[in-house]
Amino acid sequence: MPARLAREVLATGRPVHVVGIREFADATLYVGLPFQTVRLGAAGQMLAAFRAAGVRELVMLGRAGRPSLLSIFPDGWTAGAMARLGRAVLAGGDDTLLRGITRILEGEGFTVRGVHQVRGGLTVPPGLLAGPPPDEAQMADIARGTAVLHALAPQDVGQAVVVQQGLVLAVEAIEGTDAMLARAATLRREGPGGVMVKLPKAQQDDRLDLPTIGPTTIEGVVAAGLAGIAIAAHRSLIAERETTLALAATQGVFLLSLDTTQKDTPE
Amino acid sequence: MPARLAREVLATGRPVHVVGIREFADATLYVGLPFQTVRLGAAGQMLAAFRAAGVRELVMLGRAGRPSLLSIFPDGWTAGAMARLGRAVLAGGDDTLLRGITRILEGEGFTVRGVHQVRGGLTVPPGLLAGPPPDEAQMADIARGTAVLHALAPQDVGQAVVVQQGLVLAVEAIEGTDAMLARAATLRREGPGGVMVKLPKAQQDDRLDLPTIGPTTIEGVVAAGLAGIAIAAHRSLIAERETTLALAATQGVFLLSLDTTQKDTPE
Repeated sequence: MPARLAREVLATGRPVHVVGIREFADATLYVGLPFQTVRLGAAGQMLAAFRAAGVRELVMLGRAGRPSLLSIFPDGWTAGAMARLGRAVLAGGDDTLLRGITRILEGEGFTVRGVHQVRGGLTVPPGLLAGPPPDEAQMADIARGTAVLHALAPQDVGQAVVVQQGLVLAVEAIEGTDAMLARAATLRREGPGGVMVKLPKAQQDDRLDLPTIGPTTIEGVVAAGLAGIAIAAHRSLIAERETTLALAATQGVFLLSLDTTQKDTPE
Repeated sequence: MPARLAREVLATGRPVHVVGIREFADATLYVGLPFQTVRLGAAGQMLAAFRAAGVRELVMLGRAGRPSLLSIFPDGWTAGAMARLGRAVLAGGDDTLLRGITRILEGEGFTVRGVHQVRGGLTVPPGLLAGPPPDEAQMADIARGTAVLHALAPQDVGQAVVVQQGLVLAVEAIEGTDAMLARAATLRREGPGGVMVKLPKAQQDDRLDLPTIGPTTIEGVVAAGLAGIAIAAHRSLIAERETTLALAATQGVFLLSLDTTQKDTPE
């Protein structure tokens, strides 16, 4: 997704500069783009690279497995930033950590943007986006999944759950959505249905780590035998949107975008 | 555990009668005990068997994988009970379902007892029960796990989480604690520590489904590379207590029993 975004923004005439984290970025995806890597922990080098390229606006994108803090050998800037973040933030959930990093980047004079703020058409309006409409039992499963995610949201754990016939089959933590779906495939009960619900945490900064689905998510849902997916309107990203929606439609999997404006308030 | 309990209660001079659910009970474990099975869904037969044996007090014990409702072919009594329970209870979490079943059994004139009420020494006082004392980082992980479980408790999802260096590696849902530990083994980060926290849901009826650990739990924690386990004093069961504590001590895994009397009040 980062390479795709960079090319799309470049196509609109805005200059881009991509800095990848060496341990996670696949350089072959960035051929033809202004691209460089720094090793994990060398955030000082990364900021220097941005400044040298005249970058003022930053978008953080792509999933990096959260490394053990002990596996990072921080450069001087990073060590200082880690000290400023403090242990509680470093050891917190993704959301806590990303907000801490954002505050520091803003303190360095950069503006942090959400991916949907630099590229339109990535978030979606409410409604049924693909597939057959969910039935009453599936709507009840969506409501149950939503309630579980809302209860967990202040704890900054994960964004997704799988519910079938009212039973919570799986709750996402650090393993990520695809691994959770693979597990749900083995936990599913006989009988119809089952839904995945993936929602942002209520207090989440929408510039950071919005819940994302894509073709792989649809494939995982199909493999798990689930009936569909519910996401939050305006606060979710769909990667490769046309492919994703077409795949859901072909596979008969519903993709429902929920109007969560009411429910986003923590109960 | 049910066979063990039956023999122990019998040894105290109280008569017992065991009815197993055919799809889950292993008859070879019950040799020499008054034992019979009924198929899943034939709860009417089960109650008739209890009445014929003069049973007045019931203990529900042992884990039955939650079947799909559609896979049950209820006898007449069970169908009536399911109708009385209603769809919301049948499709709810374990806790909701067990409380519903208990209400119906009590309505039929039986007294439902917790396993710790018919056999002493199964629950534990607060304190370090085995292994080395947890360090500060492990105590912080226990606090984080406790907070996550308390947030989830009203949703009736699962009883256990795994936390390492502040990161929630795994949240238990329907897969059970052993499967969650197996997953945690693959999700663990480099570096020290990691704890499993397993606590009753705040509103849980202590006669039903108290969090249980045993030798298998210790083995799972060791295999996952975790430092220890935190459970709730007075509201947890330890199966094969001597074996479990000895195994934890031998493996250097701490087993900490928390005084949760304060924290049991939902926040």
